[in-house]
Amino acid sequence: MRSKLPLLTLTTDFGLADEYVGVMKGVILGIAPAVPVIDLCHHIAPQDIHQAARLLAASFRYFPADSLHVVVVDPGVGSDRRIVLLNAHSQFFLAPDNGVLSAILQDTEESAKAWQVRTQDLFLAEVSQTFHGRDIFAPVAAHLAAGQEPAKVGPAINPHDLITIELPGATIGPNARTITGQVTGCDRFGNLLTNIHRSDITRFLDQAKTTELCFSIAGHTIHGLAETYHNVTPGSLLAIVGSRGFVEIAASQAHAADFLHPAANQPVIVTIPDS
Amino acid sequence: MRSKLPLLTLTTDFGLADEYVGVMKGVILGIAPAVPVIDLCHHIAPQDIHQAARLLAASFRYFPADSLHVVVVDPGVGSDRRIVLLNAHSQFFLAPDNGVLSAILQDTEESAKAWQVRTQDLFLAEVSQTFHGRDIFAPVAAHLAAGQEPAKVGPAINPHDLITIELPGATIGPNARTITGQVTGCDRFGNLLTNIHRSDITRFLDQAKTTELCFSIAGHTIHGLAETYHNVTPGSLLAIVGSRGFVEIAASQAHAADFLHPAANQPVIVTIPDS
Amino acid sequence: MRSKLPLLTLTTDFGLADEYVGVMKGVILGIAPAVPVIDLCHHIAPQDIHQAARLLAASFRYFPADSLHVVVVDPGVGSDRRIVLLNAHSQFFLAPDNGVLSAILQDTEESAKAWQVRTQDLFLAEVSQTFHGRDIFAPVAAHLAAGQEPAKVGPAINPHDLITIELPGATIGPNARTITGQVTGCDRFGNLLTNIHRSDITRFLDQAKTTELCFSIAGHTIHGLAETYHNVTPGSLLAIVGSRGFVEIAASQAHAADFLHPAANQPVIVTIPDS
Repeated sequence: MRSKLPLLTLTTDFGLADEYVGVMKGVILGIAPAVPVIDLCHHIAPQDIHQAARLLAASFRYFPADSLHVVVVDPGVGSDRRIVLLNAHSQFFLAPDNGVLSAILQDTEESAKAWQVRTQDLFLAEVSQTFHGRDIFAPVAAHLAAGQEPAKVGPAINPHDLITIELPGATIGPNARTITGQVTGCDRFGNLLTNIHRSDITRFLDQAKTTELCFSIAGHTIHGLAETYHNVTPGSLLAIVGSRGFVEIAASQAHAADFLHPAANQPVIVTIPDS
Repeated sequence: MRSKLPLLTLTTDFGLADEYVGVMKGVILGIAPAVPVIDLCHHIAPQDIHQAARLLAASFRYFPADSLHVVVVDPGVGSDRRIVLLNAHSQFFLAPDNGVLSAILQDTEESAKAWQVRTQDLFLAEVSQTFHGRDIFAPVAAHLAAGQEPAKVGPAINPHDLITIELPGATIGPNARTITGQVTGCDRFGNLLTNIHRSDITRFLDQAKTTELCFSIAGHTIHGLAETYHNVTPGSLLAIVGSRGFVEIAASQAHAADFLHPAANQPVIVTIPDS
Repeated sequence: MRSKLPLLTLTTDFGLADEYVGVMKGVILGIAPAVPVIDLCHHIAPQDIHQAARLLAASFRYFPADSLHVVVVDPGVGSDRRIVLLNAHSQFFLAPDNGVLSAILQDTEESAKAWQVRTQDLFLAEVSQTFHGRDIFAPVAAHLAAGQEPAKVGPAINPHDLITIELPGATIGPNARTITGQVTGCDRFGNLLTNIHRSDITRFLDQAKTTELCFSIAGHTIHGLAETYHNVTPGSLLAIVGSRGFVEIAASQAHAADFLHPAANQPVIVTIPDS
């Protein structure tokens, strides 16, 4: 028997208004009484695989080795979509094979392993066609937490055979003078998340030049990449590398989204100074 | 001393915007430091005993034996309503005696036991008239989790003397050719929950005939009981037995409630084919 | 090494729609695998230090000795604002030095101690300028929970040097015949919280006289301080000392806020009878 896993996380689109998350925890603790269960997020927009994939990629590196991340954003529940267990980046991921692990797989190491979850002995005795979170994901995760070998969940599969979805990144314009990205979300503070990664910018210029960048969004121009929220006067827009490592458009002590009213996938264009 | 309880669950109408739930957990862990506390649901509509009763009934079977379910949906706090401890279905329930345990009591076994909670030594030293969740429910639950005998909470009472409320079920029409139920709720996916149980349907016909059933709701007719969300084209309405064991009206990869705009207690009528 | 702390609480303005809270817990459990982490509240209005200060003051006494309360309501993140650890009232508080601990400091004992958090060895290796909750607060709290000495976080400072903000209390009118307070918040039940403390009233009159008090709010007058929500007919307004120890304006089995539409800081005036 392998050593127990340190913790489980749950990422779902179930919300917290119903009993779904609580019931999953009941199933888990009935099998693995001592495992800590962390709510990573239950407010993924219903069936939004892209949002879940990005959130998971932004989060998993902050968990201890051998954490098991259970992802139930599963529009295909009850269909013949596969359920998979992935071991990559020193973490485990249990998810439907629908692309929700795409960002994990993008830069995964050679030694990554995967299995198709098929061992019905690890499921609840009665499996519904509508709530595999309770009937399959929760008990399988708990058995793994309790020490079950990963290979016992089902046959090994090639991680590269998992379904992936496109998570558009920023694109580099002619002569590397512009970077074009999009808004991918908005947090509770009104900060707009984009798909422009820190590395998209730093590979083109020295740190010293970040003050010369221009960010254009929705008819507004922001000069320079801020180091902190306090580089500008309160209420002013700023561009900053946020906690996920991606550029965010924020307003100092104010709500950027209420001011900018960004469209879905609102473009954000970075202009790079001549060097 | 009896063995410790495996876990506590909390079901309240407190929401998560205030400190109420967190403070209850502080009181609990101060008395029973190692007990896992699971949030079953804190978004019961304020003082909605019916919703809490149905949610609890849909959930408790998924928890390990001797779990203690603490229910604080308590419009009578501060009045002379009783607080009761019920041991039934291999589970414990601590709740105000206001009907919130009705669904548990409907089909409870002969051996069920109940006690009225009256032992003030188990309460906080100062008991408010407005927050018994913190001052009575939390410490009593924690003492039970820490090994206190159930009989120590107060005098034994007859489980059949607990207050019950009516939780209307589906009704069978003349000649058993129709089943009439109502919509009882809506989840985050827009699926409409009804009070038509799987057994209301299966006792009248063979499984093979489920494709011949007709479901009528708000001027729409749905043919056949679906096995999965994927039996129909995306966007189409379907009827399916949901994870609670009751018929749900859903829309494949879409939001049925936004489409149907059901009224409160919207009727749902099932027409059963001639056999 | 000192003994481990019994539990951590988290109070933030992060909400639950993003990964922020879950990631903090990942960092914490990676360092202190067995510490219970309680969500006290994550729905503080963004950057509302006053609300957080009041909520914290209403809550901390219900936690076991040596609990560590982590408060990340931090408009100054990335600026030169200090992070402080406070030991007062037999509890620990880890917070930005922005006034969020004001209510704790108001009546703190002589023996209270404080430290400025500066020991970078206790932080994550990479510290962002936007998410100190993850990069500083979480790991420092976890190291303390795991047994690190408080003094190891940084230099001792005088608790009286911490920044405080004014949390206006009720004021006593001429001849002590009126008490004037304000509405400070509203809970999920529509109950209006005020800043009129039980002691503001009781120091002026005998318990017997509470029935003779008059409460005026938004053109309505309420006669007497109720003992429970059931002292008046359903739907009627009442004034009651709520679970925080402050007067609340409620409506029996109804939603007072929807009825009264209070303004921000809506005045509430108590008239005290002649003795």
